[in-house]
Amino acid sequence: MGRLTTRTPVTRISLNDGGVAVRRRADTLVVEEPLEIRILGEALTVTMRTPGHDLELAAGFLVSEGVIAASRDLRSAIHCGGPGTGPAAATPLLTIGPAVGTPASTENTYNVLDIALAPGLEPLVTDIARNFYTTSSCGVCGTASIEAIEKQSRYDVATDAAAVDAALITTLPDRLRAGQAVFEKTGGLHAAALFDARSGELLVLREDVGRHNAVDKVIGWAVLEDRLPLTGTVLQVSGRASFELVQKAVMAGIPILSAVSAPSSLAVELAAASGLTLVGFVRGSSMNVYSHPERVRVPAASQV
Amino acid sequence: MGRLTTRTPVTRISLNDGGVAVRRRADTLVVEEPLEIRILGEALTVTMRTPGHDLELAAGFLVSEGVIAASRDLRSAIHCGGPGTGPAAATPLLTIGPAVGTPASTENTYNVLDIALAPGLEPLVTDIARNFYTTSSCGVCGTASIEAIEKQSRYDVATDAAAVDAALITTLPDRLRAGQAVFEKTGGLHAAALFDARSGELLVLREDVGRHNAVDKVIGWAVLEDRLPLTGTVLQVSGRASFELVQKAVMAGIPILSAVSAPSSLAVELAAASGLTLVGFVRGSSMNVYSHPERVRVPAASQV
Repeated sequence: MGRLTTRTPVTRISLNDGGVAVRRRADTLVVEEPLEIRILGEALTVTMRTPGHDLELAAGFLVSEGVIAASRDLRSAIHCGGPGTGPAAATPLLTIGPAVGTPASTENTYNVLDIALAPGLEPLVTDIARNFYTTSSCGVCGTASIEAIEKQSRYDVATDAAAVDAALITTLPDRLRAGQAVFEKTGGLHAAALFDARSGELLVLREDVGRHNAVDKVIGWAVLEDRLPLTGTVLQVSGRASFELVQKAVMAGIPILSAVSAPSSLAVELAAASGLTLVGFVRGSSMNVYSHPERVRVPAASQV
Repeated sequence: MGRLTTRTPVTRISLNDGGVAVRRRADTLVVEEPLEIRILGEALTVTMRTPGHDLELAAGFLVSEGVIAASRDLRSAIHCGGPGTGPAAATPLLTIGPAVGTPASTENTYNVLDIALAPGLEPLVTDIARNFYTTSSCGVCGTASIEAIEKQSRYDVATDAAAVDAALITTLPDRLRAGQAVFEKTGGLHAAALFDARSGELLVLREDVGRHNAVDKVIGWAVLEDRLPLTGTVLQVSGRASFELVQKAVMAGIPILSAVSAPSSLAVELAAASGLTLVGFVRGSSMNVYSHPERVRVPAASQV
């Protein structure tokens, strides 16, 4: 687990009634650091992320890119650096079968994660390695041409029979916020959480300085738990719903995506075309359903 | 100018006192579409952006990546597609000297922008083309390795003698919001605006579904106006301050960056190291100054 927050001195200026108060004090910041994801030593992508759950982040990213779908697709994963890795780096996050590659750095910054995929998957990654780079808020960069942006998911969320009570959805933003340990201290984090659509049970919640990273961590948790496709679940996100977030949900087989704030035009278009239920502006006791509202249950007698 | 908003039918659900109201109505969404930036026909990057000011977006991106610094560095820019471009595409956004390349698409989606750089600049772009992809919130992808993330700016903001009144800074978030034509309709846009640090004059304001795109558009406007380096200016952004936003400011020679919300740890570190004044949590009459507070003027007698 990496550092989630750090303390820094700050000059606080307050203007009041024509006067001013200036004082130095300590402030808590959310940690942002680059993570380079490598496949067998070859750089695949660099993302600006909050340290922690790096393996989930990488696994979720690989799911979003259509590379992996189960834990068996990963053979090993290890934090490493350049030549001469110290002891700390020698502990892999994941090893399935014999370790591949040698940790090699005099100083482990925990900002490089080297992954070995199961045999047979390497060529796929090698093929697309030149073409995808991700960031704290984007998965579309997996394709260098516009024509290829809409990825083909191996799951068909359109056939997912999941249904969720509208009343349950209204509770999710508060439950998301309540689970955000770091946000309260820094005001700087996005969050994503997966809930069971029927029972409302919280399955997993992750925070990150980048909202797409938070979603990748949630999906990465699920693939490492071999829970894909994520049928019958609701993914709740703290911010807005972009094209890439819808894409990530579809790639993981999540049938319902709920956002606290606004969706974009392309998010709605992709959700409608993919069979995903997209909910936005979940505030108080109201919400907007932008696509496939048939999954959102309301008391039938009350419908206008 | 592209479409900034679009209308879509939405199912509005409101739960009240045990009852529920469900109705269909139209909602306004912010438009999100991919933009592929090409150099002489070769794909350089794909970013999810709000259409409009595409040339500025591309120019600002190229400034952030250290490729260009003045309008003369751009030779031509044209929206184009595949073979057989229609008449609409034949009007270049920018032509300096003879046009390079032929617009060629049966349908112009305005989502591909082909740029020709001034002679002598192509090799640089060719060298880095394989290594950078951007997105709506990231510029770090210009470098595929962590070691190279901190870009070398051609400007030294540390020597910028700019100063700004704290009282002026407190007015910027409201002035930014007042200038956001689209946000009010959709709740879905980020904004960035450039102000003169001394007079407070608004120089330019841009909105985009991605906050890094909004900053790129502002910087792109400036480079097309041949205003780089942007000495004596304040860049105000609507959201948080990430590493990449600080990097973009430094690359354009902006000495002061003010964010409505929280900065990340790496944003503060880069600002401190680069000589940039980073202000965050500008709310009401208060603010936090995270680096180089000497540029923020307060009435001396009132200091605590």
